Amino acid sequence: MLNFEFKNPTKIIFGKETIAKISSEIPKDAKVLMLYGGGSIKSNGIYEQVKNALVNFEVIEFGGIPANPEYAVLIKALEIIKSEKITYLLAVGGGSVIDGTKFLSSAALYEGENPWDIVSKFIRTEIGMPFGCVLTMPATGSEMNSGAVITRAETQEKYGMGGPGLFPQFSILDPQVIQSIPPHQIANGIMDAFSHVLEQYMTFPTQAFLQDRFCESIMQTLIQVAPTVIENPFNHEAASNYMWSCTMALNGLIQKGVPTDWAIHAIGHELTALFGIDHARTLAIIAPSHYRYNFEAKKKKLAQFAERVFGIQEGTTEEKANAGIIKMEEFIHSLNIKTRLSEYTPNFEGTAEKISDRFIKRNWLTLGEHKNLAPSDVEKIVKMSY
Amino acid sequence: MLNFEFKNPTKIIFGKETIAKISSEIPKDAKVLMLYGGGSIKSNGIYEQVKNALVNFEVIEFGGIPANPEYAVLIKALEIIKSEKITYLLAVGGGSVIDGTKFLSSAALYEGENPWDIVSKFIRTEIGMPFGCVLTMPATGSEMNSGAVITRAETQEKYGMGGPGLFPQFSILDPQVIQSIPPHQIANGIMDAFSHVLEQYMTFPTQAFLQDRFCESIMQTLIQVAPTVIENPFNHEAASNYMWSCTMALNGLIQKGVPTDWAIHAIGHELTALFGIDHARTLAIIAPSHYRYNFEAKKKKLAQFAERVFGIQEGTTEEKANAGIIKMEEFIHSLNIKTRLSEYTPNFEGTAEKISDRFIKRNWLTLGEHKNLAPSDVEKIVKMSY
Repeated sequence: MLNFEFKNPTKIIFGKETIAKISSEIPKDAKVLMLYGGGSIKSNGIYEQVKNALVNFEVIEFGGIPANPEYAVLIKALEIIKSEKITYLLAVGGGSVIDGTKFLSSAALYEGENPWDIVSKFIRTEIGMPFGCVLTMPATGSEMNSGAVITRAETQEKYGMGGPGLFPQFSILDPQVIQSIPPHQIANGIMDAFSHVLEQYMTFPTQAFLQDRFCESIMQTLIQVAPTVIENPFNHEAASNYMWSCTMALNGLIQKGVPTDWAIHAIGHELTALFGIDHARTLAIIAPSHYRYNFEAKKKKLAQFAERVFGIQEGTTEEKANAGIIKMEEFIHSLNIKTRLSEYTPNFEGTAEKISDRFIKRNWLTLGEHKNLAPSDVEKIVKMSY
Repeated sequence: MLNFEFKNPTKIIFGKETIAKISSEIPKDAKVLMLYGGGSIKSNGIYEQVKNALVNFEVIEFGGIPANPEYAVLIKALEIIKSEKITYLLAVGGGSVIDGTKFLSSAALYEGENPWDIVSKFIRTEIGMPFGCVLTMPATGSEMNSGAVITRAETQEKYGMGGPGLFPQFSILDPQVIQSIPPHQIANGIMDAFSHVLEQYMTFPTQAFLQDRFCESIMQTLIQVAPTVIENPFNHEAASNYMWSCTMALNGLIQKGVPTDWAIHAIGHELTALFGIDHARTLAIIAPSHYRYNFEAKKKKLAQFAERVFGIQEGTTEEKANAGIIKMEEFIHSLNIKTRLSEYTPNFEGTAEKISDRFIKRNWLTLGEHKNLAPSDVEKIVKMSY
């Protein structure tokens, strides 16, 4: 087990009918900017619940934050924060709204001239404007971590940002919100969370026995509840296990003391930037090829995955490892998610070279848990994913 | 899954050679009271590491906090806190020293006349004096939770206390400290942590699938590393997994969204108060009888435990459940821990009635996850444990 530090101060309020508790979490004298996305919260009852909870607060609204939170849109919200002297942010949405709110939390207190520097220059946020979340779409884990991913359309860029100042003060997780999520988005959420676990698990054996088992626990739970929650999001037990699994998949706990990979996310982000493919689906496209390309380095962990998550007891390490990849693909397909780039776009030719070039330009020359994946390797992995 | 709230702000600093990091966690202008136990830290090098880290701080020492932290001793430390105008507490020890420090954290800011009221009247601590921990003995999980158990010898009482103001600000977990712990104490630590998981797991199926799997993960890890860490505490991998498992067993995470039992601890505390038996061993005495006595209510979970933790696939629910209890006893015996009261004291007769009487006097009439265990049931469970 590697040395680590872990601190996660976010307060989770989990369960049915918990949205009303917002009112006891936000300071009474706060001036609140309530941020949300495309407006689905207005048709599913969440908007009304939030507004009822905020009835005694001074609130300004900012809707329209798009999937893959767009810098140009966020800058408009930043202007409101400054002109209206906002003191507290409330994200009501999924990962995109929460990530956008994290950017705003940082930018609101940033003293530099250009807020894009926070993202492009990887400036760590030590203190942000306080914010809370009402999660409407379990997937990214952003509700209980201090990271965010921000997109800038004009340059087709998608970058991570973060820092200890960007933990939500509280996040409300009411599994009932899942009832109004379309099945393909629930599938995306399951895929995203599953992939988060894979990135922190599928490296090499490090004798972090407890962390391994926690990872396997999350993956087993997602596999167990996936059919039910997609079929019937009113099933409270499936919905709540899905929701809590997504949070636990990326709240920092399972990555402590172990190496992590994250190459799949790095490559996947490019597919979203280039083609607008749903984030979760880019992970489904890249993961199987990534594991086949890096088979030798990862085969022991792939075999453990096959044994413990899918119960495969027969065969050599290599056979089990291969079976693990196949089982993983079958699970992804069971979510009705396709695993080849050519199934998403006819314009896939040249993508591998384009992504490789972009990694070279950014000096991203050492991906993966061994920091030995060069842009030429990335190119081959993307080609294998066509 | 039941509704829950979860917030745990303790910063964990885990790994080799991390004790020196104390100096960056305590405010520079703090006046520190350093608390420890019987002085073993002076022979194993931990005292020196801590003192070196504190070289630029104003520090007063208070040693001699006994196992099962004794109120009369703690009151002497409280006098020093007040007379010396201490602003920060540093616990260097195991669960007893940390629990004692939590009492002091609360009592230092308590405005009532009698500090024992905090314990005897279950006064919840909202704000305590800030404190950090250097953990020297993994077992209780106190290093990452807000609870404590305090003993008062003159009345043979042992009570729990706690509140959100009693989370450590930081806890340093260097697995190398395990190298100097005697094997029987390591065995106690494993038993204690294992029992913490059992109390939060062995109830009835609640479809909290993820929490169940996390519990099973911790128990499997403890079972896996127990022989190695007892045999060779210099084995870093076994030591670090043992240490992290103990913390995760009682930092609040696995109890969220599920019913909990805690009857074993409630009864066990009486055996420590009456006979001075090590806390962990009292749990080993009570657990098997408790599960046999409450077999019908717990058999589904006992069977799941047998299946997932011990790999027992054959038999009816009842057969598996029985096998689970037997496997649990075998595991406890493998730690060289005895499971009958008569193996610890020749004066066991009358104990069951005595404990039952004490529960009646305290109005503790409804133990267990169903709140249906009366003192008469406690009496039978203790008799079964003779």
